[in-house]
Amino acid sequence: MSLLERIESCHRHDVAGYRPFLVEDRRVGFMRQDLAVELARYPSVFRVDPDQVSVAEHLDTFDYRSAAIDSVMREMRQQGLIRGWRDELFPVAESYGRPPLFDLERAAVPLFGVKAYGVHVNGYVQRDGETWLWVGRRAANRPIEPGKLDHLVAGGLPAGMKPFDNLIKEAAEEASVPKELARRARPCGALSYRMELDSCLRDDTIFVYDLELPADFVPQNHDGEIADFQLMSLGEVERLLAETTSFKFNVGLVIVDFLIRHGHIAPDRPDYAQLAMAVARKP
Amino acid sequence: MSLLERIESCHRHDVAGYRPFLVEDRRVGFMRQDLAVELARYPSVFRVDPDQVSVAEHLDTFDYRSAAIDSVMREMRQQGLIRGWRDELFPVAESYGRPPLFDLERAAVPLFGVKAYGVHVNGYVQRDGETWLWVGRRAANRPIEPGKLDHLVAGGLPAGMKPFDNLIKEAAEEASVPKELARRARPCGALSYRMELDSCLRDDTIFVYDLELPADFVPQNHDGEIADFQLMSLGEVERLLAETTSFKFNVGLVIVDFLIRHGHIAPDRPDYAQLAMAVARKP
Repeated sequence: MSLLERIESCHRHDVAGYRPFLVEDRRVGFMRQDLAVELARYPSVFRVDPDQVSVAEHLDTFDYRSAAIDSVMREMRQQGLIRGWRDELFPVAESYGRPPLFDLERAAVPLFGVKAYGVHVNGYVQRDGETWLWVGRRAANRPIEPGKLDHLVAGGLPAGMKPFDNLIKEAAEEASVPKELARRARPCGALSYRMELDSCLRDDTIFVYDLELPADFVPQNHDGEIADFQLMSLGEVERLLAETTSFKFNVGLVIVDFLIRHGHIAPDRPDYAQLAMAVARKP
Repeated sequence: MSLLERIESCHRHDVAGYRPFLVEDRRVGFMRQDLAVELARYPSVFRVDPDQVSVAEHLDTFDYRSAAIDSVMREMRQQGLIRGWRDELFPVAESYGRPPLFDLERAAVPLFGVKAYGVHVNGYVQRDGETWLWVGRRAANRPIEPGKLDHLVAGGLPAGMKPFDNLIKEAAEEASVPKELARRARPCGALSYRMELDSCLRDDTIFVYDLELPADFVPQNHDGEIADFQLMSLGEVERLLAETTSFKFNVGLVIVDFLIRHGHIAPDRPDYAQLAMAVARKP
C-alpha cells in the first residue's frame, strides 16, 4: 500500500447503498437500509419512503425530535439492534456551526450516517533538528480498531462542547497532558472524509491541532483507552503508514497532512501534488 | 465580501464554455473557443473537432509536439493573437510528476487552459508573540492584477525547474532574500484552484512555503515586479481579505490557508469547517 492508497481508503464510499436521511427537507445523513426497515415500525417518529427517510414533520423542534428519537433508540438498544451504547449525545446538524436539529446517542451516529466531528492532536517533539511524533497504541478492548496506532490525543466532539475544550479534557484523560501545556495546541485545519466502515457510512470532520511538547514530557494514559505510548521518528511513521495497516484508518489521514505541513513530505516527490490534493479531498 | 466568498471566487468556472484539449487521447487542458477556431488553420499540427481539440497524431514525441506548436504560437503572436509573450516555456503534462507532453510559451498557457504550477512564500515574522506577514504591492505595469497586494515571493514554475530551486531564484530577484535564508523555507502543502479569468480557464496548483524571517530583515525588490513591501499584522491581513479586493485573487487563497494552519483562524468560528474545506477544495 502507498501513502496515496492510505488516504484514498478514507474516501471510499458509495452513497447509492444508503437512503438519504432528512430533517425539515434537508439531508443530514445517509441511513443504513436495515435501520430504515426498523424505523418504519415508528411512524409517529420517522417517515420511511423507499428512497429516503425523514423525521416526522410534527416533530418540529430540537427538543421534540431529540426526545422522540432517543426513545426509539433506547427501544432498539433493548432489542439488541444498537450495540456499544455510550450514553454520550452527538449533535446532528446540516453542517458545522449551524444550530443542531436534534441530539443523537453516539452509538447510533454511524447507523444514521450523520456528520460527526472530532479533534486530533499531533503531539510532537523537536530534537537535534528532527521532528518526532508521540504515537499511542489503542487498548485491546476498544470497539473500533483495537490495538492500532493512534494520536497522542483524539476524541469525538460531543454535544455542547467546543473543540478546544474537548482537546483540553481529552488531553488530560488520554495522555496526562497538564492544562497549561495542552493550551499551547494550535489549530491547523480541518480534514473531512466519507467512508464505509462496518457497513455504515461515516461522514467525519476532524479538527486538527499540533502540540509541540517539551523533550522530557512523557504521556501516560488514564482512561484505559491507550495501552502505551512511544516516540517515533517521522521516517518510521511514514514507513509504517506506507507499508502497514498499523495505524487507525483516519489517523493516517491526519498524519500525512502533518508530514506535508511540516515539510517532511516535500515537492521533490513526483506524487506530491497528488498527495496534497488527496488529503484535502472533499467527499 | 467574506473570506469564504474570497476563496470561492478562485473556484468559479464552467468548463462547458471551453473545448477539452487532448494529447494522445488524454485531456490536458480546456481551450478557448476562439483559439480552437484559429488552430483549425493548422491541420498538420492540431485536429479541431466541434467538441474537442487534439494535437495531431503524427506528432508523437515531446520534441515534435513542442517544435510544431511553438511555430504556430509564434505565427499567432505575429498576428497579434497572443499578447504578452514571455519567452518562457511551461511544461504541459497530464498531471504533476508525469513526463511533460510538450513545452508551451507561458503567454499561451491560459488560452489552452492547461495545468500550471507556481510557488508562493508566506514570509512572516514573530514579534512579541504575534505573527506578522510581509506583503508586497505589485508594480503598476504587471500584466495581471497590477497594484494588488502579493506575497513576499511568488512565481510560476517554468519547464525543467524544481519548485525549491525556483523559490531560491525568485526570492533573490523579488525580495533580495539571501540564498541561505531562503533555504529555510518549509513546504507546507499544495493548493489547487480552477477559475475563469479574462475569458480563460486557469487550472493552477500552488506549492505553498512558509518562511520565518529575522525581525530585522527588510525585503527589497530587484526585478521591478514589486513596487514596495510592508509588514502587516494578521488581523489587518484578514480584514483586507474579507472586506476589500486589495489582494491578488490567488494570494487570498494561500493566505487564508496560512491563517488556518497558524491558528489565527480557529474552530471557534462557526464557519471554520466550511472555510477549511473551501480552501482545500479540488475543482
